[in-house]
Amino acid sequence: MSSSVIAPTAVLGAGTRHGEFCVIGENVKIGSGCVIGHHVVIHDDTTIGDNVRIDDHTVIGKNPMKAANSATTKDQQLPACQIGPDCIIGTSVVIYRGSDIARRVLIADLSTVRENVTIGRFTIVGRGVAIENFCKIGMYVKLETNVYVTAYSEIGDRVFVAPCVATSNDNFVGRTEERFKHFKGVTVKRGARLGVHATVLPGKTINEDALVAAGALVTEDVPAHKIVAGLPAKPFRDVPKEQLLENQGWKDE
Amino acid sequence: MSSSVIAPTAVLGAGTRHGEFCVIGENVKIGSGCVIGHHVVIHDDTTIGDNVRIDDHTVIGKNPMKAANSATTKDQQLPACQIGPDCIIGTSVVIYRGSDIARRVLIADLSTVRENVTIGRFTIVGRGVAIENFCKIGMYVKLETNVYVTAYSEIGDRVFVAPCVATSNDNFVGRTEERFKHFKGVTVKRGARLGVHATVLPGKTINEDALVAAGALVTEDVPAHKIVAGLPAKPFRDVPKEQLLENQGWKDE
Amino acid sequence: MSSSVIAPTAVLGAGTRHGEFCVIGENVKIGSGCVIGHHVVIHDDTTIGDNVRIDDHTVIGKNPMKAANSATTKDQQLPACQIGPDCIIGTSVVIYRGSDIARRVLIADLSTVRENVTIGRFTIVGRGVAIENFCKIGMYVKLETNVYVTAYSEIGDRVFVAPCVATSNDNFVGRTEERFKHFKGVTVKRGARLGVHATVLPGKTINEDALVAAGALVTEDVPAHKIVAGLPAKPFRDVPKEQLLENQGWKDE
Repeated sequence: MSSSVIAPTAVLGAGTRHGEFCVIGENVKIGSGCVIGHHVVIHDDTTIGDNVRIDDHTVIGKNPMKAANSATTKDQQLPACQIGPDCIIGTSVVIYRGSDIARRVLIADLSTVRENVTIGRFTIVGRGVAIENFCKIGMYVKLETNVYVTAYSEIGDRVFVAPCVATSNDNFVGRTEERFKHFKGVTVKRGARLGVHATVLPGKTINEDALVAAGALVTEDVPAHKIVAGLPAKPFRDVPKEQLLENQGWKDE
Repeated sequence: MSSSVIAPTAVLGAGTRHGEFCVIGENVKIGSGCVIGHHVVIHDDTTIGDNVRIDDHTVIGKNPMKAANSATTKDQQLPACQIGPDCIIGTSVVIYRGSDIARRVLIADLSTVRENVTIGRFTIVGRGVAIENFCKIGMYVKLETNVYVTAYSEIGDRVFVAPCVATSNDNFVGRTEERFKHFKGVTVKRGARLGVHATVLPGKTINEDALVAAGALVTEDVPAHKIVAGLPAKPFRDVPKEQLLENQGWKDE
Repeated sequence: MSSSVIAPTAVLGAGTRHGEFCVIGENVKIGSGCVIGHHVVIHDDTTIGDNVRIDDHTVIGKNPMKAANSATTKDQQLPACQIGPDCIIGTSVVIYRGSDIARRVLIADLSTVRENVTIGRFTIVGRGVAIENFCKIGMYVKLETNVYVTAYSEIGDRVFVAPCVATSNDNFVGRTEERFKHFKGVTVKRGARLGVHATVLPGKTINEDALVAAGALVTEDVPAHKIVAGLPAKPFRDVPKEQLLENQGWKDE
């Protein structure tokens, strides 16, 4: 006997358990061995792999909201939300329809993942992180607590973003018709790292294995393998050899 | 048949739908054509206009909490929460009793709006924004993701606040009895703009159509139509003409 | 008649009320006179004192998540979550198993408190605050809105942290095996204060009754009773006498 409301067309795999007061919509497919908490909402058409953990109060497959006044959200037909096997999704997370999340990803409490987002395998999305629409997040990425990834950003494999880093995508700060042609998120190339409370301006690129120091304001592209620091950020030395990605001995699975 | 718990004195307009496990309190009035998600809680006496969308897990009309130790929250009789027509309220939003929200406002996921707050029409409150108590937010304002609006602030019409901007209201940083006389939020005048990760100190005013650059720390009032940047922020040039509010051709509805 | 699901082994004290659709687990003990909102989840073994208020959608006693890829979360046996009497817990808060919260603490909306955390009496944890695992928070502390307390931090009694302050604990920014030996949060000693949007680097100590100015980046230990400011932060004068903790006339209860 369960208090949950499960659509007749939803399919739950063998050994998958769910808590009280869940709502599981039409055509949802959930793999085997999943553990779903209380008050979880899984909207229509979502597909979830095997052995996924989803904690209380999380919402998956949400349809976007369209403000009267929005610059980036348009009405559109979105593919169903896809969550790969062995993922862990925390409490009060919101994942939109039109997102595609690979296997073994962790998405911690109170994070949001918007539509038209892909996240690669083994990536960690920390507590309170916001990934806006039209972002591509690589594999083995770490986005630490409260990181803000603006719309139209691209984050490469093995990137590390420390807590409370902010990004932006509008150099015109909400003015002129011109700006709609120039909206551009940030690009962080493979293995690059950003320190706590750093800021990256619209359209800037952090190149391979570069390091942005804590509190730095990135106003120009950052060269590969360089450390930049300050406000605005200036290069001041090379990334130490023992910290380079190629010297970690890490292998992709 | 519905799993929701709706008080006998609540009134829902024609065509208004709600999801599973909602709780709708005494004397709540909801207009027609609304779409209310799952697990939504609407506390006693709240009034909601026509065609409002409210997403899963949102709480409206919450009574304030009073810490043993709080500097700004007092026991008080609050008017009921009011939400105008055509608003969109996201997932896991918390809106307090004693707030008044005009028509066509968007309040995105995980935002909080405290008591004694007014928000003007067509304003966008981004994901994770916190608007503290005793704030007045104008119309056509954009508060982007994770913006923090401190108590006792006033944000004028057509203001644009980029993601992760922070404000404060206590120059004495929690010390002296004197400070209770000086609590003052920030004032942002019509059309002014703040860049990503900017910080505004207590009591400061950003004047009409001024622009605070990304990452700047505002320690003095900002003159109208000027751009300021740096830590602390200093004026460095005028806002380009084509970016001035008067040159956008925008009309209020 | 109640829609909530309460385990037969759970014990609720006299006069304790709860809302709709709550889930209260095995061996939970709740004192008398508590007011629990709607959709609240209290996981197994949690103990809650008398006269505690818990608002809608809050989760207490959550089991940690273990990412394939995490640097600080290990499998472990955790003691049950303990919440002292006269606490107020806001909406959509997440408190983990293995946390111990003293009496008269306020934890505001959308905050998270991880495992292996202690919080002293009369402390205020503001809206959206994240306290990571292995932190010790003193009594009469104020952590304002959106403060981020990194893992392995220690915050002394009567500390004041202004909104949007960020901290970090990994000087190697996610690289080298060496870093696991050096993980260290921040230490904030009794009565110290941090201004809005300040940043503190890994392992740094803010000494007794020091003051970090708004927006400052703390890269070295801060001496007692000194004010530091800038990026990086430099000492620039003494804390004014009338603001020193010893001159406030405050007494511990």
